[in-house]
Amino acid sequence: MSPRDRQQRSSKGHQDFCIKNIKQADFGRREIEIAEQEMPALMALRKRSGGEKPLVGAKVVGCTHITAQTAVLMETLSALGAQCRWAACNIYSTQNAVAAALAEGGFSVFAWKGESEDDFWWCIDRCVSLEAWQPNMILDDGGDLTHWIFKKYPNMFKMIKGIVEESVTGVHRLYQLSKAGRLCIPAMNVNDSITKQKFDNLYCCRESILDGLKRSTDVMFGGKQVVVCGYGEVGKGCSAALKAMGSVVNVTEVDPICALQACMDGFRLVKLNEVIRQVDLVITCTGNKNVVAREYLDRMKNGCIVCNMGHSNTEIDVVSLRTPELTWEKVRSQVDHVIWPDGKRIILLAEGRLLNLSCSTVPTFVLSITATTQALALIELYNAPEGRYKQDVYLLPKKMDEFVASLHLPTFDAHLTELTDEQGKYLGLSKTGPFKPNYYRY
Amino acid sequence: MSPRDRQQRSSKGHQDFCIKNIKQADFGRREIEIAEQEMPALMALRKRSGGEKPLVGAKVVGCTHITAQTAVLMETLSALGAQCRWAACNIYSTQNAVAAALAEGGFSVFAWKGESEDDFWWCIDRCVSLEAWQPNMILDDGGDLTHWIFKKYPNMFKMIKGIVEESVTGVHRLYQLSKAGRLCIPAMNVNDSITKQKFDNLYCCRESILDGLKRSTDVMFGGKQVVVCGYGEVGKGCSAALKAMGSVVNVTEVDPICALQACMDGFRLVKLNEVIRQVDLVITCTGNKNVVAREYLDRMKNGCIVCNMGHSNTEIDVVSLRTPELTWEKVRSQVDHVIWPDGKRIILLAEGRLLNLSCSTVPTFVLSITATTQALALIELYNAPEGRYKQDVYLLPKKMDEFVASLHLPTFDAHLTELTDEQGKYLGLSKTGPFKPNYYRY
Amino acid sequence: MSPRDRQQRSSKGHQDFCIKNIKQADFGRREIEIAEQEMPALMALRKRSGGEKPLVGAKVVGCTHITAQTAVLMETLSALGAQCRWAACNIYSTQNAVAAALAEGGFSVFAWKGESEDDFWWCIDRCVSLEAWQPNMILDDGGDLTHWIFKKYPNMFKMIKGIVEESVTGVHRLYQLSKAGRLCIPAMNVNDSITKQKFDNLYCCRESILDGLKRSTDVMFGGKQVVVCGYGEVGKGCSAALKAMGSVVNVTEVDPICALQACMDGFRLVKLNEVIRQVDLVITCTGNKNVVAREYLDRMKNGCIVCNMGHSNTEIDVVSLRTPELTWEKVRSQVDHVIWPDGKRIILLAEGRLLNLSCSTVPTFVLSITATTQALALIELYNAPEGRYKQDVYLLPKKMDEFVASLHLPTFDAHLTELTDEQGKYLGLSKTGPFKPNYYRY
Amino acid sequence: MSPRDRQQRSSKGHQDFCIKNIKQADFGRREIEIAEQEMPALMALRKRSGGEKPLVGAKVVGCTHITAQTAVLMETLSALGAQCRWAACNIYSTQNAVAAALAEGGFSVFAWKGESEDDFWWCIDRCVSLEAWQPNMILDDGGDLTHWIFKKYPNMFKMIKGIVEESVTGVHRLYQLSKAGRLCIPAMNVNDSITKQKFDNLYCCRESILDGLKRSTDVMFGGKQVVVCGYGEVGKGCSAALKAMGSVVNVTEVDPICALQACMDGFRLVKLNEVIRQVDLVITCTGNKNVVAREYLDRMKNGCIVCNMGHSNTEIDVVSLRTPELTWEKVRSQVDHVIWPDGKRIILLAEGRLLNLSCSTVPTFVLSITATTQALALIELYNAPEGRYKQDVYLLPKKMDEFVASLHLPTFDAHLTELTDEQGKYLGLSKTGPFKPNYYRY
Repeated sequence: MSPRDRQQRSSKGHQDFCIKNIKQADFGRREIEIAEQEMPALMALRKRSGGEKPLVGAKVVGCTHITAQTAVLMETLSALGAQCRWAACNIYSTQNAVAAALAEGGFSVFAWKGESEDDFWWCIDRCVSLEAWQPNMILDDGGDLTHWIFKKYPNMFKMIKGIVEESVTGVHRLYQLSKAGRLCIPAMNVNDSITKQKFDNLYCCRESILDGLKRSTDVMFGGKQVVVCGYGEVGKGCSAALKAMGSVVNVTEVDPICALQACMDGFRLVKLNEVIRQVDLVITCTGNKNVVAREYLDRMKNGCIVCNMGHSNTEIDVVSLRTPELTWEKVRSQVDHVIWPDGKRIILLAEGRLLNLSCSTVPTFVLSITATTQALALIELYNAPEGRYKQDVYLLPKKMDEFVASLHLPTFDAHLTELTDEQGKYLGLSKTGPFKPNYYRY
Repeated sequence: MSPRDRQQRSSKGHQDFCIKNIKQADFGRREIEIAEQEMPALMALRKRSGGEKPLVGAKVVGCTHITAQTAVLMETLSALGAQCRWAACNIYSTQNAVAAALAEGGFSVFAWKGESEDDFWWCIDRCVSLEAWQPNMILDDGGDLTHWIFKKYPNMFKMIKGIVEESVTGVHRLYQLSKAGRLCIPAMNVNDSITKQKFDNLYCCRESILDGLKRSTDVMFGGKQVVVCGYGEVGKGCSAALKAMGSVVNVTEVDPICALQACMDGFRLVKLNEVIRQVDLVITCTGNKNVVAREYLDRMKNGCIVCNMGHSNTEIDVVSLRTPELTWEKVRSQVDHVIWPDGKRIILLAEGRLLNLSCSTVPTFVLSITATTQALALIELYNAPEGRYKQDVYLLPKKMDEFVASLHLPTFDAHLTELTDEQGKYLGLSKTGPFKPNYYRY
Repeated sequence: MSPRDRQQRSSKGHQDFCIKNIKQADFGRREIEIAEQEMPALMALRKRSGGEKPLVGAKVVGCTHITAQTAVLMETLSALGAQCRWAACNIYSTQNAVAAALAEGGFSVFAWKGESEDDFWWCIDRCVSLEAWQPNMILDDGGDLTHWIFKKYPNMFKMIKGIVEESVTGVHRLYQLSKAGRLCIPAMNVNDSITKQKFDNLYCCRESILDGLKRSTDVMFGGKQVVVCGYGEVGKGCSAALKAMGSVVNVTEVDPICALQACMDGFRLVKLNEVIRQVDLVITCTGNKNVVAREYLDRMKNGCIVCNMGHSNTEIDVVSLRTPELTWEKVRSQVDHVIWPDGKRIILLAEGRLLNLSCSTVPTFVLSITATTQALALIELYNAPEGRYKQDVYLLPKKMDEFVASLHLPTFDAHLTELTDEQGKYLGLSKTGPFKPNYYRY
Repeated sequence: MSPRDRQQRSSKGHQDFCIKNIKQADFGRREIEIAEQEMPALMALRKRSGGEKPLVGAKVVGCTHITAQTAVLMETLSALGAQCRWAACNIYSTQNAVAAALAEGGFSVFAWKGESEDDFWWCIDRCVSLEAWQPNMILDDGGDLTHWIFKKYPNMFKMIKGIVEESVTGVHRLYQLSKAGRLCIPAMNVNDSITKQKFDNLYCCRESILDGLKRSTDVMFGGKQVVVCGYGEVGKGCSAALKAMGSVVNVTEVDPICALQACMDGFRLVKLNEVIRQVDLVITCTGNKNVVAREYLDRMKNGCIVCNMGHSNTEIDVVSLRTPELTWEKVRSQVDHVIWPDGKRIILLAEGRLLNLSCSTVPTFVLSITATTQALALIELYNAPEGRYKQDVYLLPKKMDEFVASLHLPTFDAHLTELTDEQGKYLGLSKTGPFKPNYYRY
């Protein structure tokens, strides 16, 4: 029976939600409590800003993955004064027990694992189509919620003070709307905030490339010949990690600046065709299309592993491998052998989708960075004085970004130095930041 | 006898210069030829753009260090069509033989090693106060030339299409002029171009911290306890190098974002007072003032080495050490022992000035990056269509920056990948760049 | 029904074996074929020495783990002329399908997964108590087979030319026998062969520490404070890997030489009590007992992860944690939370047993090194001229060790340089090795 | 005037010495005091063993470099009870002021900078040919002193309890004597003691390769293509250092075990001819002859740097470059350009002699390790009970080697862990060591 067909009720009589099973609430609560221990920044935010409740009056409608980490975020927003209604941004990713705990806690949450396409939009609609409750802030991940309001309830934007968007895709849509002159409220691009970028890409991928490869293939890294396609933050992380494990790493690039960085970091900069016959491992990190085209797959040696760490599932031309002369053999979850007529096997991971999402996990610390950034972006947009933000897409103010970072320093028992008055004056800086010009590159 | 009192003449009869001794020209020419071999990017620029001579009509007045590397730049500008008149931006740094070779080659150069303050301005004036030759482009390093024209010949700016400025100080002056609304022509800040920044700071300092310390103190790095103050590009380079050599590195920071980077890179983030008693080596990389104050110097252990890799000579409070109770003992050029009453010795390098400039050398490759950036900035400003640049300070266009990088790739036998038409379309990029949005951080 | 109660028969009528189910032979054969692809050294050995069949006449009785990799070894021995009878050295580790494939291939194999203690010795006995087939070589892993023969059939040693023993435990037993003057035939300690040691310890652990931790805890390494107890090969591998991932690593040691190495490699050398309150991760690599005693466990901070990479399950005093005031909570396979009365949780991995065996996998390449070493040790002992080996325990001759290494170089497309005649003479070395004195330390 | 022709006298009337100038004693004393600060292990030895004076009665004749560090050693031996007479092992290396300070302090020292061959042997002879003073211990560096006694005063060996020899050459001579049955007293090979080896080779070369290259050529390491010939301790140090600085490092090897290590450490293992055309830098670390033969020099590219970090000056075939068609141009001390007819220049460092000795310095800490090892070897041989050492060459007992290491740990503020009684028993080890079997490889 679909959750839509069954009215449930929390122990306190709350009914304004639609989830799988309210009885899983206790188990979900424990998951949330564990997550709280690893998200000290949000907990600190509750304490630090708690007295003032900077989100009093905020009615946040959200559409994100529904996980224990999101629950910590939602309960933080609530503690800061906000009311929340929430749907899932993905039909598979909802943790049902967590959704139950949220419902039990009084949240209006509409999400379950395994929604249909129709369910998906129904849930989103239930979040916003309410007479008694008009949202004034949007927290989106992917842009579907924003899109739905645009399409169905355009007038609602008159009441909304701003959109906070996390994903590459959603941000892209917002910039397009802005370009087209159709963005009617301020939006904050938290995807490109500095701290989040560094953690999502460089720091996270440095670890997940090793983890993803080990879990899926048990490959030994020492002595392996590798080519990393693309030397952005993801490529830098992957290359550094494999070099440290004793692999011989080659890099391909189209951008001469990144290419020069690869050289100075000790990697051979090559074209793919120069090394494709000899490498044991091909990793794509470009965000580009058909980087590993069929012609390269044809020339790889037997046993070569191919995987994607970039931003889409287009980097490896997997479609070109779905031809009659090639045999596919699934050897494990997420691991296929593609077999050529002469017996050569290519080991394709996650069918060309993102290795780090498919075969590895994202550390809670990284999710904490993201959630804290979202919370601060909501606070900033909600409290910004008239006129600070126009109908445009903004990056998180540097000072907020610095605040996100500072909230995460205690995890490392890290002690920040404070400028003296004299030093602040000498540098022309406030002692509380921001500490760098906007063009600073970190 | 001062060069100003002696009329010299080149073998071809050229007299419009003032240098130490034209007879050193052959020796200087050999120095230039050696430099040419290590500055292939400028040589390539001569070849690539040479046919078109994009600087025909340009009259460039320059004020920079007069070295073999500058000579390669000047002769490149000349090969691209420009006329040049040149003075030195520093009274000590002129290589007399190189100046002679330039004069012999027909350049109007006014510079010698050991100029007086009066000579300095006289040379600059000789470059610009000429009826028959009005400059239309300025290449400055430090802003003195620009300042002189502002003060003495303000009308000259009507003829000048732009200023290219290389130094932190000169750029700072230009931003102040711009802020004050007094900048009457476009200026290009090449100091902050991406490629130049990375090489001047991260890549260069990674090597020069080791080199400067070894040449001045012969210290063994393995097992040493170090504190690096500041984790910008310079601090990142110094920390990485010493970690690789087996030192135990601690970092101090005021900016929480850089602080978090230090943590993720594996360094303890501390306040100076937590470690000052135990470290063997203190390195400042902050650009700030009195970072190593007397109170810290008092608490250092016997034999502690203190040096500065930052942007000024103010980071270590050297003045506070000039007190009667402390004894200074010069043990080598650039190395002083400062001795406390109880016999404790601190080893102070370069009297707190920049270690990398005082005790190490800057690789020609880094100078090549800078010189190529300057040449391209001149070409861009000189050829820009009316209106592209206003009376403001600009960063080098990303495409030019990418071009600088691409010209240096052959040195590493590096092979750049080219986007296919399909890929360019997919990414919305031209195949010739620029490849990244302006806010991209590398 | 026990395999012992059921007579099975191969397709060719072979019956002299006892395994789970002969019908799984095809599946096992495929596993063996996959392993063959990753064990090129043994395959090369078949080719290189194959013509001569150096093991003709050898009757090898073996007692090892029965896996696909062992099957490749057994079939190699067979291809080199040996006859083999085999039992398992562990009651749980037999891959039944592989055993079936071996039986189907005509081998006399006595092993199945889940043997009882009685089955275990019965299988071993079936390998040796045969009128028609007297073994003349022993290949042992753990010393149980050797022990059985000593106890039951001591006269059999008159026919046996030598023992090849792989394990720490088995080698220890042999040295004790030798010391006691009771070792009546030559034995070869392959556990301490150089190549095997480096791969089993340094190279393997460098990767498996990361893998084991990620799979069991998903911990992020960046910025974590770690203490590694013991700086032998395993400790060196673990420390280097975590340092490369951005952890801050401290080391404890009892041996001043290893301690000095840790210092020069950039690690703080501490006593456990100095850092135990602040670390996020404790890793034991000592081979010692109660290194992490209850007093240290009591002082760890909440969330601290504790695991063992050493040589026994005694390094963490797990017994001391089995007390009423502490609560154990199994959160995943191989992961327990031990909870103190105040709520503090310690995350104990694999109940203190070896992390790399429990939560990670051993790469086939490492197993290939071991198997090749065993094969060469058998060949050496079997073919050694009278008198070369006495009734003692020997290390693998360096030349053999070098040969094992050389057989594995093609995997890395590595090209060895050959000494010229003149160089060999200059160094006093044969061009075919051995290349180093016995005391050389690599 | 030769020092031999001039009788000098210390302030206390001591005359039994022959040095350059006793008046330099004060300056030499200061040098010794500075060295004392960096040799805390010897100072600790004076304190720790001082009470017992384990060298009372010892008459040590020494032949080593006469430097401030040696003076600290000699004064330590004296403080421990020994009498000393000393000559120089090299005609150029004597620090005259230090020799003066030693003479002033009452030592019988015979050495000055710039001795003739005849002076050299005269000085040695003055140390031993004394009626009143018969040496009973020899401390030699190179074997010349030992050789002289063998040749001139063979009977003296009856009184001598042992020889301590430090150099590769001297040790080689001793092993040959031993092989020939002509070694009539015990000798200790301190060259191959573990701690000394690691510091002389791995740790020292890791730093001196960078230092030597920078000081001589100012080369930038980032992005450079390098080939390191030989992957022993020296090659491992050089390769690791250059990799850390961003070079792309290839390795050549003849020994398959070292070759496999190079692979696992992430280096391409190549033959020299595969990469010689493309590399920017060739470094030899083999101990072998003509590793860089003329045929390779012919194929190097313009600007390639060639240097030797190995054990002899034979690794680069410099002789083959002394031919008429090649032009040599000295561009700096220790830097020659060798120019081919087509203009190609090879940059040859130190004419093929050891780069680390010619263009870099040896850190005092490394010299401290050596001097402490020598002191302990003297104590061991002098105090060993009858029969412990026979007429053979011995390595330093492991326990002594561990003691050398432990004396150097305080420099790093390193805290050693002590075994508990229970642990010692479990491991079968004394709490004071030795901690490892003799075949352990570190």
